[in-house]
Amino acid sequence: MKTYQEMSKEELLQEKEALEAEYAKIREMGLALDMSRGKPGADQLDLAMDMLDCLDSKSELISENGTDLRNYGILDGIPEAKRLIAEMVGTKPENVIVYGNSSLNIMYDQIARAELFGICGNTPWSKLDQVKFLCPVPGYDRHFAITEDFGIEMINIPMTEDGPDMDLVEKYVNSDPAVKGIWCVPKYSNPQGIVYSDETVRRFAALKPAAADFRIFWDNAYAVHHLYEDNQAEILNILEECEKAGNPDMVFQFCSTSKVSFPGSGIAAISASEANLADIRKRLTIQTIGHDKINQLRHVRYFKNIDGIRSHMMKQAAIIRPKFELVEKLLKEEIGARGIGTWVNPKGGYFISFEALSGCAKEIVALCKDAGVVLTGAGSPFPYKKDPKDSVIRIAPTYPSIEELEEAAKVFVIVVRLVSVKKLLG
Amino acid sequence: MKTYQEMSKEELLQEKEALEAEYAKIREMGLALDMSRGKPGADQLDLAMDMLDCLDSKSELISENGTDLRNYGILDGIPEAKRLIAEMVGTKPENVIVYGNSSLNIMYDQIARAELFGICGNTPWSKLDQVKFLCPVPGYDRHFAITEDFGIEMINIPMTEDGPDMDLVEKYVNSDPAVKGIWCVPKYSNPQGIVYSDETVRRFAALKPAAADFRIFWDNAYAVHHLYEDNQAEILNILEECEKAGNPDMVFQFCSTSKVSFPGSGIAAISASEANLADIRKRLTIQTIGHDKINQLRHVRYFKNIDGIRSHMMKQAAIIRPKFELVEKLLKEEIGARGIGTWVNPKGGYFISFEALSGCAKEIVALCKDAGVVLTGAGSPFPYKKDPKDSVIRIAPTYPSIEELEEAAKVFVIVVRLVSVKKLLG
Repeated sequence: MKTYQEMSKEELLQEKEALEAEYAKIREMGLALDMSRGKPGADQLDLAMDMLDCLDSKSELISENGTDLRNYGILDGIPEAKRLIAEMVGTKPENVIVYGNSSLNIMYDQIARAELFGICGNTPWSKLDQVKFLCPVPGYDRHFAITEDFGIEMINIPMTEDGPDMDLVEKYVNSDPAVKGIWCVPKYSNPQGIVYSDETVRRFAALKPAAADFRIFWDNAYAVHHLYEDNQAEILNILEECEKAGNPDMVFQFCSTSKVSFPGSGIAAISASEANLADIRKRLTIQTIGHDKINQLRHVRYFKNIDGIRSHMMKQAAIIRPKFELVEKLLKEEIGARGIGTWVNPKGGYFISFEALSGCAKEIVALCKDAGVVLTGAGSPFPYKKDPKDSVIRIAPTYPSIEELEEAAKVFVIVVRLVSVKKLLG
Repeated sequence: MKTYQEMSKEELLQEKEALEAEYAKIREMGLALDMSRGKPGADQLDLAMDMLDCLDSKSELISENGTDLRNYGILDGIPEAKRLIAEMVGTKPENVIVYGNSSLNIMYDQIARAELFGICGNTPWSKLDQVKFLCPVPGYDRHFAITEDFGIEMINIPMTEDGPDMDLVEKYVNSDPAVKGIWCVPKYSNPQGIVYSDETVRRFAALKPAAADFRIFWDNAYAVHHLYEDNQAEILNILEECEKAGNPDMVFQFCSTSKVSFPGSGIAAISASEANLADIRKRLTIQTIGHDKINQLRHVRYFKNIDGIRSHMMKQAAIIRPKFELVEKLLKEEIGARGIGTWVNPKGGYFISFEALSGCAKEIVALCKDAGVVLTGAGSPFPYKKDPKDSVIRIAPTYPSIEELEEAAKVFVIVVRLVSVKKLLG
């Protein structure tokens, strides 16, 4: 197959005409498909239904430390849930605070608290003229929405196949005291599925921040979200590496069971150094009496330990892996072969990040929408929703059924071809 | 029986000697009792255990609006939970946002958000030179801890038997633009069990605040926490009264099922005008994807409606009413009869607020502690933990067994007598 770049103008015009006819036909079909949302499918959720049988009216709701979990008490998580979370992200239980259902809410609160009270005795960010965050791009729109809401200036950091461009990260962090944080999804990054290399993690741990209250916001959202049984990524333990490098307090790690058990009804946690956790507890004890300990217990009773989580995630992988592979195959055959887009085949996580020809993303999303296929908004994986090259589109293959997904992906590749050919014709 | 005030010095000295001997004997018993915590007893929690059978692996976790409650979605509460909460506090479902497990956390977030972003377009409080809150006293220590943590100046407002001294409230609120809020527990107040009269509620609703962003923080924590079947307090609907008075946006109402189902595993909510809720949603959508919808559904399936909650609370009342009556009887016979303390017999809520002779509270709490009976710290029902008269002691009768409670209360009255007689002897 010729790439579009190899085609003559004549050939491109013919291609365009054919694609326009095809697109017109698709529009008439009145499709209503959705590849926009990083949500598990109902069949993935079915896998966890037994969790609801773990606790019933006959259960002893007593923690291993003797606390009656039905009553007030325990601010920072029941010991058995700390252990489960610690295993999940590879840290120690004493470095964990288990919260309620939302890791996003923990991140938000960390930033809100930094703004209001400062981190570990440092000046509250709200009293500073300028606060900046580094944002590896493409990244997670809800991270960027938080920093945008607080008026924090966001600086794009390009991603490489090993993680963020660390030369740039070092340059900013080590020289500018206004740089207070960086958003990271270190494993199966949202949306590219990139896994931070050991060198990247070590360079993070070895940063020499100009700001004493610089923190890495390490959102380990996909710690156990592998697509393959035998080809699983592992990343270095950031808390351990930071400690080794003499920067024990430099990182907040976040995680949750949202895409393990039930989104919205899982448990979420932060892990960090003892100094950071003490700083958090001091405020947290004013903010709440404690989180849902019964739900923490329910998760422990169901998964028991990391092996329980791992085997559960393999059942989920069996459901979603074919969806990823279907999209990847279509992209390869229809797009890659024509030289009009690139992507990484992820080994885990929830997304495929498609990079179209420059200046094509918005139009692809718009034409898909007109044809009844909803994609994540172009630009949304970037701070301020501004994709400088207008080329990145996040594809979320998990939520639709495989039949719907196939239909949607076929529309997508037609539209990518159509928009690309128009672009090349100028 | 003579009151202590009627006794001669000689008689008081005799009384003192006898009480000291009695106290010495008590100390030798090595008691370990606790009347400090506003926690349900285990037998109260047993009543709700069936709730855990409401949802199991066979359940359809679909909301009445069709949403799969196991997945992401729904920021502000499932419709059936909004209805249940609305019935509980007597408002409309569309005025309710249902959150996670902690109403305290909602209050904290309301204040954090006011500090950071301002309320309904007003200047963020953190940018103002001065922010003041009115604090009816005695009140709830955790309210005061929040405003203290934010550096908000707290002003004591004395309580009357009809609620806060409204002359003072009007004076402050209507004249001082720095007064941004007031903490209220309008029904079975913490700790006095006072019920705001209709006139008090109407005067609240008719306030003409100097500050556009003044809000009543109406913590309706004990809306359904009656002690008696046939002698239940009702209060006017504050949202409705504010609306009638032309102040629809002046109130945030909070509630939770913490002491209805399980503390820490209940559901909590705010109710307010549409303008306030829109202002909240705008930020909440950045803060979280949503709260635990499965637990919201669990509560609805279990209680069904307000009648379900009411009958459940009557079962709880049957357990705790004898505890209140035991303490009240001892207080009446041993303290009231001697003229050395006052209190209100509450018709609901979780506390009895004892007012000792001036200057006695700290010593009573200290001597009780030395004798193995833990009480809530003297001063804690006041801002900055400063009881100006050093006289108020909060008694929490629900958590101990009735046998332990009787023992603890007997120690308490001996200690009150001893400290009082010493005080009167000067």
